Amino acid sequence: MARALIQMALDSLDFNDTVGLATQVAPHVDILEIGTPCIKHNGVRLVQELRRKFPNNLILVDLKTMDAGEYEAAPFYAAGGDICTVLGVSGNATMAGVVKAANANNSEAQIDLINVPNKAQCAREAAKMGAQIVGVHTGLDAQAAGQTPFADLQSIAALNLPVRISVAGGINQSTVQQVVQAGAGIVVVGAAIYSAPSPGDAAREIRQLVEAA
Amino acid sequence: MARALIQMALDSLDFNDTVGLATQVAPHVDILEIGTPCIKHNGVRLVQELRRKFPNNLILVDLKTMDAGEYEAAPFYAAGGDICTVLGVSGNATMAGVVKAANANNSEAQIDLINVPNKAQCAREAAKMGAQIVGVHTGLDAQAAGQTPFADLQSIAALNLPVRISVAGGINQSTVQQVVQAGAGIVVVGAAIYSAPSPGDAAREIRQLVEAA
Repeated sequence: MARALIQMALDSLDFNDTVGLATQVAPHVDILEIGTPCIKHNGVRLVQELRRKFPNNLILVDLKTMDAGEYEAAPFYAAGGDICTVLGVSGNATMAGVVKAANANNSEAQIDLINVPNKAQCAREAAKMGAQIVGVHTGLDAQAAGQTPFADLQSIAALNLPVRISVAGGINQSTVQQVVQAGAGIVVVGAAIYSAPSPGDAAREIRQLVEAA
Repeated sequence: MARALIQMALDSLDFNDTVGLATQVAPHVDILEIGTPCIKHNGVRLVQELRRKFPNNLILVDLKTMDAGEYEAAPFYAAGGDICTVLGVSGNATMAGVVKAANANNSEAQIDLINVPNKAQCAREAAKMGAQIVGVHTGLDAQAAGQTPFADLQSIAALNLPVRISVAGGINQSTVQQVVQAGAGIVVVGAAIYSAPSPGDAAREIRQLVEAA
């Protein structure tokens, strides 16, 4: 099995802070994620800037698209996004639109299972329509209520679908190896890196833990 | 009953085209809506620009927030947004976060019922937590599949909740009066105005129809 990829969630709203944090962590992570509040705040020019500055990282735009899938996502792929996300709760037509936009750009679409009532069924639909990644995701508001993504990861991994599984929701140094061993192809780390005294050192530590898992 | 407000959906992606269309329709509509793809594409500076240029219109930012409600919405209220939207499928914690941000800015929160399985229950929760507007919304992808918002409007209006009901989904000159008579406090019009030969004339026609309804 290929080594799991590490995705850094850039959750700031500020354009320059986001670029600065990306600069600190880029050597140690695979994917730079522009978080949903951040992309809504800054717009597509932030994708263009990160694309220009970080040619060796993948860029994920966490659009969480809910409607007008192809129309919304296409310009973010054109701007240099490698992966865009679409909500599973949006329904098949919207998901298919983002998959279409991804394929037209030789890029990838991620179906976010956040708040999907029947996650296994949605993951199967996602695989069937050609999405490359399924995201098991406990949101920030749900984390604040004590929820974690670990049980969902196990049930989705057990389906053995031809997709990579991305896992997000409070992953840190003490849980990242468990997540990789449970079948995550992409581990998303946010606060455990950006709230550390040295985000670069924290990202390097996460990388060492993933490589040893 | 107060006259229903008219909301113009600005669905372009281009910054200048959006400002140009807003200029044509602003005298004839109450609310200028920055559509979801448009806000993701352009970021908060578009809110600031419309706020500056159109002091006599309300500005709705169609964030369709799915997580981190207060964090995501607060800066858009601070930038001059009068109404931000949050998805009903996000759950109560996220909705409450946007309501909190709205109240902190003497502004309004709209709960979007798009794809919510139990719309009546969600509308009741929205009213209970102090949201000012509930949105009955058939998305563009669902419209392409032939769906309309009219049945949902009737069932939500029958609840007699202390909220205004906003209705969106393919409303045009031939349906706008029916929507107002069925209880809509806000009617959202998009393509019927922006695809018309003269968007300004189309907006004026919509206004005459709403006033006569």
